[in-house]
Amino acid sequence: MHPVQFEVEATDGAARSGTATTANGSYTTPLFMPVGTRGAIKYLSADDYARVGAQIVLGNTYHLMLRPGSELVAKFGGLGKFAGWDGLTLTDSGGFQVFSLEPKVDDAGVTFKSTYDGSTIRFTPEEAVRVQQELGADIQMVLDQCPPLPSPPDVVRTALERTSAWAARAKAAHDRPDQALFGIVQGGISESMRAESAQRTVELGFDGYGIGGLSVGETRAEMLPALAAAIEHLPDDRPRYLMGVGDPASLVEAVGLGVDQFDCVMQTRLGRHGTALTSTGRFQAKAARNAELDEPLDANCPCDVCARHSRGYIRHLLQVGEPTASRLLSIHNVAWTIDLMNRMRSAIEAGRFDELRREVLSVWDT
Amino acid sequence: MHPVQFEVEATDGAARSGTATTANGSYTTPLFMPVGTRGAIKYLSADDYARVGAQIVLGNTYHLMLRPGSELVAKFGGLGKFAGWDGLTLTDSGGFQVFSLEPKVDDAGVTFKSTYDGSTIRFTPEEAVRVQQELGADIQMVLDQCPPLPSPPDVVRTALERTSAWAARAKAAHDRPDQALFGIVQGGISESMRAESAQRTVELGFDGYGIGGLSVGETRAEMLPALAAAIEHLPDDRPRYLMGVGDPASLVEAVGLGVDQFDCVMQTRLGRHGTALTSTGRFQAKAARNAELDEPLDANCPCDVCARHSRGYIRHLLQVGEPTASRLLSIHNVAWTIDLMNRMRSAIEAGRFDELRREVLSVWDT
Ligand SMILES: [Zn+2]
Ligand SMILES: [Zn+2]
Repeated sequence: MHPVQFEVEATDGAARSGTATTANGSYTTPLFMPVGTRGAIKYLSADDYARVGAQIVLGNTYHLMLRPGSELVAKFGGLGKFAGWDGLTLTDSGGFQVFSLEPKVDDAGVTFKSTYDGSTIRFTPEEAVRVQQELGADIQMVLDQCPPLPSPPDVVRTALERTSAWAARAKAAHDRPDQALFGIVQGGISESMRAESAQRTVELGFDGYGIGGLSVGETRAEMLPALAAAIEHLPDDRPRYLMGVGDPASLVEAVGLGVDQFDCVMQTRLGRHGTALTSTGRFQAKAARNAELDEPLDANCPCDVCARHSRGYIRHLLQVGEPTASRLLSIHNVAWTIDLMNRMRSAIEAGRFDELRREVLSVWDT
Repeated sequence: MHPVQFEVEATDGAARSGTATTANGSYTTPLFMPVGTRGAIKYLSADDYARVGAQIVLGNTYHLMLRPGSELVAKFGGLGKFAGWDGLTLTDSGGFQVFSLEPKVDDAGVTFKSTYDGSTIRFTPEEAVRVQQELGADIQMVLDQCPPLPSPPDVVRTALERTSAWAARAKAAHDRPDQALFGIVQGGISESMRAESAQRTVELGFDGYGIGGLSVGETRAEMLPALAAAIEHLPDDRPRYLMGVGDPASLVEAVGLGVDQFDCVMQTRLGRHGTALTSTGRFQAKAARNAELDEPLDANCPCDVCARHSRGYIRHLLQVGEPTASRLLSIHNVAWTIDLMNRMRSAIEAGRFDELRREVLSVWDT
């Protein structure tokens, strides 16, 4: 039944480190998964993914089903083979993008207009499963409904109910035994609705559990109790995936509550806009004060960019608009975040997770 | 006196293979040098340069003296260290860009407006040497005057005279013993002026000889006799560098006449615009017929991109505007050209250069 086996290897409070084994390979947790929206991490290619330490790379179902189409990706052997990447892959359901397009929603599914050619497209939980089976990632996600926050309780309730009903239909439709299917918990920032959604999703039974609809407008102080209420009802022996969250403070707080894996586009988006994540916080690489600095973005970062390039050089590339700057900052930001996850893993194993958590929050809790 | 020692190792007709040894390392010829105009090959960084097989990477003096400025590059230890590249570097004189800006030219130098901030800048042969000594590449080029072709004979003559007078001044100004200084032959498509320019430049005595002002509007049939006329008067024991030429037909023809090294922006420019160089000619990677092709850009290419990625994947990335496509095509085009140079080197050593020349021309002589 479960194409993902998950073994918790160490715990420190609620934080845990572990290894998940899929049909095509295993991954260690806590894990940060970079995002290749349209089949490539922007400015990077599969050659780079292992070098930045990626174990799983995400693809975006909304974009890939429209361009180049899931049938084509299937002809190439699935998303990993299509991208030349022999590590693991995960596809989101496409719901997050579809719901941002102001679609017509009914209990059976959603109808939206393609941002590529304006065509009208009908999308259902079953179609999300079918498309993702063709995309062939190692893990696929059920189609959920993610309300923006704040939303009135009845909107959050409707999204919860739809997500639950659609999860059951997704599970029934899914028949690819080498691919894991993760359910998704919704419920806004209501602890009771988060608990209920988690219980109902677990009752259906999935290979792992996504926690969706967080970091969509609420504060971190609002997010964390809702996250904790969900996790309380998730089984220990399944991976827990906090979707779309990747700022360092949220990463350590969520791992502290027992989350295993994360994805976020922030690392690459900030990189493209000239911002680096470092052990002393964000910094604007284009700032004039960097011009003469022959030191790396972060002296503590193990990435190839920090091993080879100075702030002065990267600042110059940004100043003259060289695309290499976007590439170098994207590589650093992803590798830096993956290193943070590895440091969390070591800290959990050593029983000093809270020390690392406080260290990270002292810089990033802003 | 000569910071470049050049040893011819094999000849096949006029074609020759050799090894040049500079103060910081050696390079083998025939050689293609990719161009990092503003301090980086577009979409690539130093990590990539060795992987594509580059031995020397060019920097552009015009751009680097304005941004970030040669003093700053000197503070970082020169162009190679600034870019994190431990291979060899070469800077052009900046003349080619300056003369494209419709400058005021007199016998002493040129006055032009910066394309960065509109400021008025005076540039002389001595200033080109000083700036390039600060940029600190292993090889620098004298400031020459390159007329567009076709130009009336008196314009070509004036450029020849200026280039000759400026070369003497450059040589007098150059005093960095670990850096080679190459003279430049001008003379348009006139065989007699090319011969005269070569003789006069050799009389001055340089570490190597650039042949400039070709592939600037004339046909290949006009270029090759002018090139041959110059080479006839260049010494065997100095490298010969055909500047700004990189199309495959010109590369094999020029090597056949005895040229040792080349630079060109065509490879990366074509890459950014979706065109691949292959053993069957140019091809538009975005063409719909590539969509389902699970085969490399060129089955005979040894590059990382061809080892890992399909035409279908690259076509998809182009179709959706992913910057990774520009990167992959740039890597392929540079590595493919360097492989062509390596094949020429092997063919010269094996005494079958003309066979390879004919093979390349059968595809590229269009
Ligand atoms: Zn780094
Ligand atoms: Zn290739």
